[in-house]
Amino acid sequence: MSLTRIHNLSISLDGFATGEPQSLEAPFGHAGQRLHEWMFATRFWDAGGTAGVDDAFAVRHEDGIGAEIMGAHKFGPPGWQDDPGWTGWWGPNPPFHTPTFVLTHHPRPSLEMEGGTTFHFLAASPAAALQEARAAAGGQDVRIGGGPSVVRDFVAAGLVDHMHLVQVPIVLGRGVRVWDGLEGLEDDYAVEAVSSPSGVTHLTFTRTGPGRGDPS
Amino acid sequence: MSLTRIHNLSISLDGFATGEPQSLEAPFGHAGQRLHEWMFATRFWDAGGTAGVDDAFAVRHEDGIGAEIMGAHKFGPPGWQDDPGWTGWWGPNPPFHTPTFVLTHHPRPSLEMEGGTTFHFLAASPAAALQEARAAAGGQDVRIGGGPSVVRDFVAAGLVDHMHLVQVPIVLGRGVRVWDGLEGLEDDYAVEAVSSPSGVTHLTFTRTGPGRGDPS
Repeated sequence: MSLTRIHNLSISLDGFATGEPQSLEAPFGHAGQRLHEWMFATRFWDAGGTAGVDDAFAVRHEDGIGAEIMGAHKFGPPGWQDDPGWTGWWGPNPPFHTPTFVLTHHPRPSLEMEGGTTFHFLAASPAAALQEARAAAGGQDVRIGGGPSVVRDFVAAGLVDHMHLVQVPIVLGRGVRVWDGLEGLEDDYAVEAVSSPSGVTHLTFTRTGPGRGDPS
Repeated sequence: MSLTRIHNLSISLDGFATGEPQSLEAPFGHAGQRLHEWMFATRFWDAGGTAGVDDAFAVRHEDGIGAEIMGAHKFGPPGWQDDPGWTGWWGPNPPFHTPTFVLTHHPRPSLEMEGGTTFHFLAASPAAALQEARAAAGGQDVRIGGGPSVVRDFVAAGLVDHMHLVQVPIVLGRGVRVWDGLEGLEDDYAVEAVSSPSGVTHLTFTRTGPGRGDPS
């Protein structure tokens, strides 16, 4: 069975997965890199990093993933749709290595990068995008790569089987909140929390019943 | 030194310390008792309860406290100010056992209850209320008892030395959020997170520098 999964989505104590405003210089706005320092310190990111609980969670980002879906805000700064030369933040060899579907109201031709990543651009509902990604995933799982509003849309549509959030002990005050519209989420998921010596808390949500929106 | 402390303030994953709407029948609105089940399961609440990490945190609510300050919403349902017979939710022997200051725009005469609790009613700023409570605390600490908007006001004014929040794995979606207006809180506090086998995560904030608002 091919699952739909979310990994390593870092949020502040007040639930923001990105600060504001987003720009070319500041992809996470005033949050800077503060939401992701826990990950930079792991072996997943850096061979000399830690191999504890943070790393154990971080590495699952890759495991068994055959495609990713991301939102337009993850692919580029405001206005990238008007720049035909924009190929994402990640240089010639992006860290996805699978078909990667970018949700945008302004689709463009697919873009084949080095290392196995091909960007496809879709104007589609969450369910329709998932169907395309699933077909491209070769029987493996589909990752919803964020940002927070895309995560919210897929979770609210009942399409997500497993979600891993990482709560970082900072209060951002503003940005894009992951929780909005998800009242009662715990009814459909087994929730676990485990705090790490690094200061972050890993939250996992594992779906306990059939999906609300996935016809498969 | 007399400290100002917050204990056992339970919040949802999305940061709400109470649901809505508050009423005589539902002091926490649609949250019901879900934010406090972790506490009911401890020995602090029930002699047959657990004695693990949840209990270790819960019991500190009482320890060394000489006075409490609470908001009008904690003292009674909307409209209690118009009922001269209202003496709080807690019956003749409230669980405070100290001078207890209720912030309200409609002060009334003090109310001496059984067991050492005396309610005093104050229309005062956080700093002024703290000064009164401190004077009544006999050298012991002052607890800010909530609800969330009062907690926010005292924290934002730099008056709080220690704060203990308990994050419960539910998404309430609406109510009163504790985080609003507290951007950058981590600059003034050492933050720790520890998850419990019960599913909740204890968050402690210990002030690392001098208070921003406390003249003492």
